[in-house]
Amino acid sequence: MLRICLATSNEHKLREVRAVGGEFGVVVEQCPAPKIEIQSESIEEIVLKSAMLAYFYLNKPVLVEDAGLYINALGGFPGPYSSYVYKTIGLNGVLKLLREIPDRRACFKSAVALVLGDVLLTATGEVCGYIANEPRGTKGFGFDPIFIPNGETRTFGEMELEEKNKYSHRAIAVRRVLQKLLSLRSY
Amino acid sequence: MLRICLATSNEHKLREVRAVGGEFGVVVEQCPAPKIEIQSESIEEIVLKSAMLAYFYLNKPVLVEDAGLYINALGGFPGPYSSYVYKTIGLNGVLKLLREIPDRRACFKSAVALVLGDVLLTATGEVCGYIANEPRGTKGFGFDPIFIPNGETRTFGEMELEEKNKYSHRAIAVRRVLQKLLSLRSY
Repeated sequence: MLRICLATSNEHKLREVRAVGGEFGVVVEQCPAPKIEIQSESIEEIVLKSAMLAYFYLNKPVLVEDAGLYINALGGFPGPYSSYVYKTIGLNGVLKLLREIPDRRACFKSAVALVLGDVLLTATGEVCGYIANEPRGTKGFGFDPIFIPNGETRTFGEMELEEKNKYSHRAIAVRRVLQKLLSLRSY
Repeated sequence: MLRICLATSNEHKLREVRAVGGEFGVVVEQCPAPKIEIQSESIEEIVLKSAMLAYFYLNKPVLVEDAGLYINALGGFPGPYSSYVYKTIGLNGVLKLLREIPDRRACFKSAVALVLGDVLLTATGEVCGYIANEPRGTKGFGFDPIFIPNGETRTFGEMELEEKNKYSHRAIAVRRVLQKLLSLRSY
């Protein structure tokens, strides 16, 4: 049975990734050290190098995930800086920026990197939808209360974890990287 | 067409790896920066971390290879420290250590790590044989003139590059890692 640690201090993220790990029989724990992230506009580059650094000091299987909300009408803002924007201007700041803008389209993107003792694999996941007119729901975290995936009327903030994981960028990326690992192992 | 650089200052190693790359349509150049190696008794760990460091500063596809000669009667000596032992006591020192020892069995082992922008893959290769009674041949490098692969009467030092690459630990490891890459790409 594979045990990996997720380099994060975000308990919500840990629960989401743990649930996906469970689909593959992989046990996901929290890493015992903080995540080091380089600055980059590419979340793919951030997770790749963050995973290398984490493996350097941890010497054990590690998974790193980074995500962003890309709003079409705002040129992709807040993108890789979603956490910072969430902590500063918050949900209301983003809604204010979209006031009187009819195009509410947006995508959540996730990048993951997994390092074992002999391999480093990456994957991305994406879910597109639109930005709600006001925050709804208290589940999930970050921009979840204002994001409605295509085909739904509820925000991520109104969904249970299992339901969010059916759609979410993060769940898609984690599933993909674990599928890559299995395909390589069977080779 | 994939272009990778090999982190090495060893021209012989570069030629050997370039020839194997050619079998896969991969172009192998020399990296523009020296290889950083951590100290470890595991050549697998050395190449994994060396590849991570190299990718950190180079930001381009990089291959790292490390190898050692493991002599049965000497408990695996010189193993991961083969370069150092070659430079200090040399071929004659090793032959002296084996004087009056009938068990001449030995294996060359190679570990490689390949990093592209989205993946890091590793592989190992091994060729077993025995230690000659005296150095023979001027081709190859390092301990090649005293190593005879099983099924042969000549040392690696007496073989052309193409012939050595049919047997060699290094060629096996590089072929394996490129095969893994192809299997993942087709996935």
